[in-house]
Amino acid sequence: MAAECGSGNCDAWAARDPSGILSPYKFNRRAVQSDDVSLRITHCGVCYADVAWTRNILNNSMYPLVPGKKFVKLCLNFNMSRHEIAGVVTEVGADVKSFKVGDHIGVGTYVNSCRDCENCNSSLENYCSQHVFTFNGVDTDGTVTKGGYSTHIVVHERYCFKIPDGYPLEKAAPLLCAGITVYSPMMRHNMNQPGKSLGVIGLGGLGHMAVKFGKAFGLKVTVISTSESKRKEAIDLLGADNFVVSSDENQMETLKSSLHFIIDTASGDHPFDPYLSLLKVGGVMALLSFPSEIKVHPANLNLGGRSLSGSVTGGTKDIQEMINFCAANKIYPDIEMIKIDYINEALQRLVDRDVRFRFVIDIENSFK
Amino acid sequence: MAAECGSGNCDAWAARDPSGILSPYKFNRRAVQSDDVSLRITHCGVCYADVAWTRNILNNSMYPLVPGKKFVKLCLNFNMSRHEIAGVVTEVGADVKSFKVGDHIGVGTYVNSCRDCENCNSSLENYCSQHVFTFNGVDTDGTVTKGGYSTHIVVHERYCFKIPDGYPLEKAAPLLCAGITVYSPMMRHNMNQPGKSLGVIGLGGLGHMAVKFGKAFGLKVTVISTSESKRKEAIDLLGADNFVVSSDENQMETLKSSLHFIIDTASGDHPFDPYLSLLKVGGVMALLSFPSEIKVHPANLNLGGRSLSGSVTGGTKDIQEMINFCAANKIYPDIEMIKIDYINEALQRLVDRDVRFRFVIDIENSFK
Repeated sequence: MAAECGSGNCDAWAARDPSGILSPYKFNRRAVQSDDVSLRITHCGVCYADVAWTRNILNNSMYPLVPGKKFVKLCLNFNMSRHEIAGVVTEVGADVKSFKVGDHIGVGTYVNSCRDCENCNSSLENYCSQHVFTFNGVDTDGTVTKGGYSTHIVVHERYCFKIPDGYPLEKAAPLLCAGITVYSPMMRHNMNQPGKSLGVIGLGGLGHMAVKFGKAFGLKVTVISTSESKRKEAIDLLGADNFVVSSDENQMETLKSSLHFIIDTASGDHPFDPYLSLLKVGGVMALLSFPSEIKVHPANLNLGGRSLSGSVTGGTKDIQEMINFCAANKIYPDIEMIKIDYINEALQRLVDRDVRFRFVIDIENSFK
Repeated sequence: MAAECGSGNCDAWAARDPSGILSPYKFNRRAVQSDDVSLRITHCGVCYADVAWTRNILNNSMYPLVPGKKFVKLCLNFNMSRHEIAGVVTEVGADVKSFKVGDHIGVGTYVNSCRDCENCNSSLENYCSQHVFTFNGVDTDGTVTKGGYSTHIVVHERYCFKIPDGYPLEKAAPLLCAGITVYSPMMRHNMNQPGKSLGVIGLGGLGHMAVKFGKAFGLKVTVISTSESKRKEAIDLLGADNFVVSSDENQMETLKSSLHFIIDTASGDHPFDPYLSLLKVGGVMALLSFPSEIKVHPANLNLGGRSLSGSVTGGTKDIQEMINFCAANKIYPDIEMIKIDYINEALQRLVDRDVRFRFVIDIENSFK
């Protein structure tokens, strides 16, 4: 039993095999180095990537596996990772400049990068070819990274982000992936132009953040969903201006050539031409998910001067900017708080798409 | 014979049936209206679209058909139209403000648009849903437009462009389509950044203009071609910095993640993933051709934050800006001048890709 549970300075829940069932586990976090921050984790978001790796869907899981942030290097048939770490600084290394004990900080999809390439030097660490995922990644010291379903984590300060005073930590957690995954392409494609129009495909964890950012930017937001059942949430709960069911050709026709921007968060395979044709001339559709293939009729790009663009999470500068923007504009993800002992049910509910809109694990009250 | 040749105030060469063989023809141009400019055509470029319509490949040709500028509304398996009209103003309507008799002007891919939609009001007349092609289009008065293989043309001044003094008319002609088709997406995607890198796929009429613009913008230009035989032209004649054969995996590997921009002028079906993977993070690939389908692996967009964008020709403001830019920077298309009685051979050579890089018909010396 002791061997099964492991031993060390950090309590966690881990998957031991491809059943994906998580159970209590102990392991050692590294000692704080000169540039490191040690974080007492209070909250951790839950995303489908957790299901993927705990159940070894990609056949690259390293057990015991402590989920809690990881994104998808391979082509997956679902949205990118969506869990995130928030907590309180308990120790800082001698050279740490940005944080002090007691600060509230977040950790996102990666905990290391080469810090010396063109991408790192442009604050695009998320695209560094050597960046290290927050869990199930191999760090520069050869250890396998373990995520936020655990009581503390030690991270180089470059990959930690200040959460402003007063911003609830449980709400901050989902910003570290769902938030930045949406915000980064929105900023890159200048979607923060009041009065312009945004279509949001899919209303899960990413989609609901896209609606919130869109409204904060002053956009006219249309949610495009496969399910009529999402209409009330979209309009009443999230404040979208318009709602369209994608299978209804008449509704889709009313949107034709009307949108400046589209954020595509739809998981799974889906056609692209019906959505691209909704864009105005010069419009941009930002893809955030990993269908197995993209097929497009060139006329839908050429005859409207349209663009299809891809994206994964965001760089460190964008992450801090996004958190600050959320705090300044009172943008809060909608979450369902759970304890760690509910995680196996939660992961199944995630598979069943039964969550509005993000599970967040109350880590600090789960390991007492 | 008289009936076959037609009658009217304008000499031309026209195709009479799907054989696509052109022969002499006469027809009437309209009288100059208050906003019209009448142009004595001195030169007209030749493009594959001429082959398409003279041979009724799209099954929508209206005979007798006078080629000379038209672009492709449908999905075609070749690049967009590439011929263009240049000449001298002989008459202007009472309300014409921008031109006077004796001016050198050009006419491009369209001769009318609604002038009242969002696109027209943004100088994006090329994307107006009612814009009228320069030949084989139906104008607002119900007449079928006839292109530049003719001695004169009457066009609303909005769709005419000043060719600066000293810019050779025979060189100006190809700017009106090949030039603007390349220039417009290059400007839209901010490719005029000295020191950045550009890949040009295909070295035909559009590709050779992309190299010239790229060098004028201070870019490092790599030509990517299916044929090693283009190396000398690319490097020695056009001044490209680098040349890669697309079928050579080793050469392609050296380019991986190295390009800021790609201009894709390749006619015919071709894969997209090998080219997208050449882009740096945040890079843009601008598609100017009409393959039958675009297939892309999402990882090639997402994991590099890359964009695939489409485009057709350009708006009136861009066209004038492009002509002025060419004059200021001494950018001249490379052409092979022909007389109109060589046109049937020229069209066949175009099919056989045997032209460096554009045929231009010496109209003024063909109809004497």
